[in-house]
Amino acid sequence: MMLKQLKQQVLEANLNLVKYNLVTLTWGNASGVDRERGLVVIKPSGVPYEKLKVDDMVVLNFDGKVVEGKLRPSSDAPTHLELYRAFPSIGGIAHSHSTVATAFAQSRKEIPCFGTTHADVFYGSIPVTRMLKKSEVDRNYELNTGKIIVERFQKIDPSSMPAVLVAGHAPFAWGNDALEAVEHMLVLERVAEMAYSTMMLQQKPQLLPQFILRKHYQRKHGDNAYYGQKKS
Amino acid sequence: MMLKQLKQQVLEANLNLVKYNLVTLTWGNASGVDRERGLVVIKPSGVPYEKLKVDDMVVLNFDGKVVEGKLRPSSDAPTHLELYRAFPSIGGIAHSHSTVATAFAQSRKEIPCFGTTHADVFYGSIPVTRMLKKSEVDRNYELNTGKIIVERFQKIDPSSMPAVLVAGHAPFAWGNDALEAVEHMLVLERVAEMAYSTMMLQQKPQLLPQFILRKHYQRKHGDNAYYGQKKS
Amino acid sequence: MMLKQLKQQVLEANLNLVKYNLVTLTWGNASGVDRERGLVVIKPSGVPYEKLKVDDMVVLNFDGKVVEGKLRPSSDAPTHLELYRAFPSIGGIAHSHSTVATAFAQSRKEIPCFGTTHADVFYGSIPVTRMLKKSEVDRNYELNTGKIIVERFQKIDPSSMPAVLVAGHAPFAWGNDALEAVEHMLVLERVAEMAYSTMMLQQKPQLLPQFILRKHYQRKHGDNAYYGQKKS
Amino acid sequence: MMLKQLKQQVLEANLNLVKYNLVTLTWGNASGVDRERGLVVIKPSGVPYEKLKVDDMVVLNFDGKVVEGKLRPSSDAPTHLELYRAFPSIGGIAHSHSTVATAFAQSRKEIPCFGTTHADVFYGSIPVTRMLKKSEVDRNYELNTGKIIVERFQKIDPSSMPAVLVAGHAPFAWGNDALEAVEHMLVLERVAEMAYSTMMLQQKPQLLPQFILRKHYQRKHGDNAYYGQKKS
Repeated sequence: MMLKQLKQQVLEANLNLVKYNLVTLTWGNASGVDRERGLVVIKPSGVPYEKLKVDDMVVLNFDGKVVEGKLRPSSDAPTHLELYRAFPSIGGIAHSHSTVATAFAQSRKEIPCFGTTHADVFYGSIPVTRMLKKSEVDRNYELNTGKIIVERFQKIDPSSMPAVLVAGHAPFAWGNDALEAVEHMLVLERVAEMAYSTMMLQQKPQLLPQFILRKHYQRKHGDNAYYGQKKS
Repeated sequence: MMLKQLKQQVLEANLNLVKYNLVTLTWGNASGVDRERGLVVIKPSGVPYEKLKVDDMVVLNFDGKVVEGKLRPSSDAPTHLELYRAFPSIGGIAHSHSTVATAFAQSRKEIPCFGTTHADVFYGSIPVTRMLKKSEVDRNYELNTGKIIVERFQKIDPSSMPAVLVAGHAPFAWGNDALEAVEHMLVLERVAEMAYSTMMLQQKPQLLPQFILRKHYQRKHGDNAYYGQKKS
Repeated sequence: MMLKQLKQQVLEANLNLVKYNLVTLTWGNASGVDRERGLVVIKPSGVPYEKLKVDDMVVLNFDGKVVEGKLRPSSDAPTHLELYRAFPSIGGIAHSHSTVATAFAQSRKEIPCFGTTHADVFYGSIPVTRMLKKSEVDRNYELNTGKIIVERFQKIDPSSMPAVLVAGHAPFAWGNDALEAVEHMLVLERVAEMAYSTMMLQQKPQLLPQFILRKHYQRKHGDNAYYGQKKS
Repeated sequence: MMLKQLKQQVLEANLNLVKYNLVTLTWGNASGVDRERGLVVIKPSGVPYEKLKVDDMVVLNFDGKVVEGKLRPSSDAPTHLELYRAFPSIGGIAHSHSTVATAFAQSRKEIPCFGTTHADVFYGSIPVTRMLKKSEVDRNYELNTGKIIVERFQKIDPSSMPAVLVAGHAPFAWGNDALEAVEHMLVLERVAEMAYSTMMLQQKPQLLPQFILRKHYQRKHGDNAYYGQKKS
């Protein structure tokens, strides 16, 4: 894919955050990576979505240096970069403050897997990070946000768990590219809404049995996946 | 009705799932049956709603063999087929993961009849199935989903209870045709929202008395129904 | 006002139920009265809102006889007529199954006045009727719905309390004309949403003090009202 | 800025209340101040938003005398004026009855800071005023509403806490100009929604640690702010 195409895709992914009703004002951002060239394309900081143009997208190398674009990158860029460095399998990242997923992050609770909607995309409970320490906030705050996500995923495969809740902050999601990352963010919010209502209806809701979790995840993502049309 | 017309109607029913705000991404599906010809028309799997065209609709016989259409049918087709086989009175089926009805399915709780909105369409509490067993999930999962719905309806008339919650999954609804099935899905979600709030407001909410349930159901569906215009 | 104008106004009021997001499918209805001629104009039963035309409006006399229009009136017409007979000060009525007001009706709880949003329109808690008895449901159900509303208002002035919750059913609202009745229905739903959340946040929320309730109601409706522009 | 421009900006801010879904019917209002000329521009009372024109905006001096415009000012004008007199740093004010922020006001509870969404704009818990006394309501009600806000801010800097909940009433927000005041109102509602859900999910939710609150507030508003693009 040409860099121009990647910028176009990242723009579209950012606009989907608005289309899917996941952001307020200038909150949220999406990025995509070109691993061959070692470049990341990300939304500029604080620009209204309705004014975003393809050439406003900021191109960074993996050290965070701007190599193309006149605007400042999203202030969350160091978090994105850390995730791209630590998770070689991902191609796009999205960040939002969508309402109910953020409420889970604020309550510092995982989102348990109560049903197949969740299991279709997330292979288990959506994890929540620990809180950052004062020293981690005072220096390299956004980089350290990435590091505590990576720390939380020491025993989790980011390919089968494409989202996380940062405690006291909000969710990040990822995928094969920026568009899929934003789709995962949308599913995360919907799953959070369902889990919230489930927890209000049932004092001790039961988790989806492991064999259904596996079945649903595999019918979409396994070697013998049969959901959707055959890839041509 | 010609097969072409049925495909058009099933397409419209699927698009109504979007119009009524009942689906996210490619979730959900609707189908219709031509019982004379023994054919079922259903949405293809994993195709975005905004790209659906009438000729994308997949035509199956009652054994699930594709007899027309180039795309794979919805992965839930075996569930639809089982319901058409077991419930001779129904002409259309809809499936969605609408938020609050799904939360009830996840909490594995029936939706009690607390008011006339519910009684106008559903003649009693909306039932919830048992959980599937491991062996039922490992083989013929979607068919077995249909079977546990039918099992739950052993003593229930599907004509007067046109919806069910599949435990840990989501709702199915049905009706005289695909369009009515989707309308019932919409009413189900609205009724779920109202029941949810009622249960939050009242620790022990009382059911609607049986004589009002019967009155409301009959004024719309009984032999002396007087709601709406006379059928010409 | 000419009858034609009244029909136009009642049509507009019915369409506002949709615009204000207060109805699903064909639920809900609004009517207006011409007291000089002794005529009531009401929505026809079960016609989709997007197809409603001015000449579909049904004209009834106070005994419920259709004097103009080819369609059946709303099945709730006897309720409207009873309210027009009992409450001489009102000029329009609206009925909806808006979600949160209906949840209060289903929980059989009044909506307490917790704030000035409520006090601006409703001079006290929104009352809830008793449940209908079996005999009242079996015969003249819709008329008796009107009668238990009137019974509940024995000591309440319908001019300063322009709405009611029918237990196990849904709200009715009224006003100087059909348009105002629908506006009151909209305020009722918003006030219900706020009261619901207030009751979730506070185990024992306190009522708005009586002196603020009076002040807010009077600044909009009293002899010295100063909200809005002077009436010309 | 010319007075004409200020009127245009105040009009736009009022229309944003609608665009951001913060108001119902004619509720809410926004104003802006020209401190050099000693003039305040505010929405007229009770005029539907869709009919508002730039010349409908009412111009007042600091004593509340109308110096331009044919319509009555918002009935809340005395509250706005009191805030402009007491808080010299603010340039615009917004008032709404947005649903969840109003529920907090009705429950007479502060909105605690549970996360960074809140910390980005509000430097601590959103305060709630005391209730007005009977004598304060009976005379100069709207002025006294302003006074109890000012009283509540004796030890709070309105620049770093640009909103308040008036007990039993609803929120006010402010900012550098009318547009920013309305943006702060939008953030307030979103933050209220998140706090509400957090409090439902967690019986004893923990506040965001002070060092993260400071960090987030400062990265947007401090001397070394690095969120957004450099101001040119």
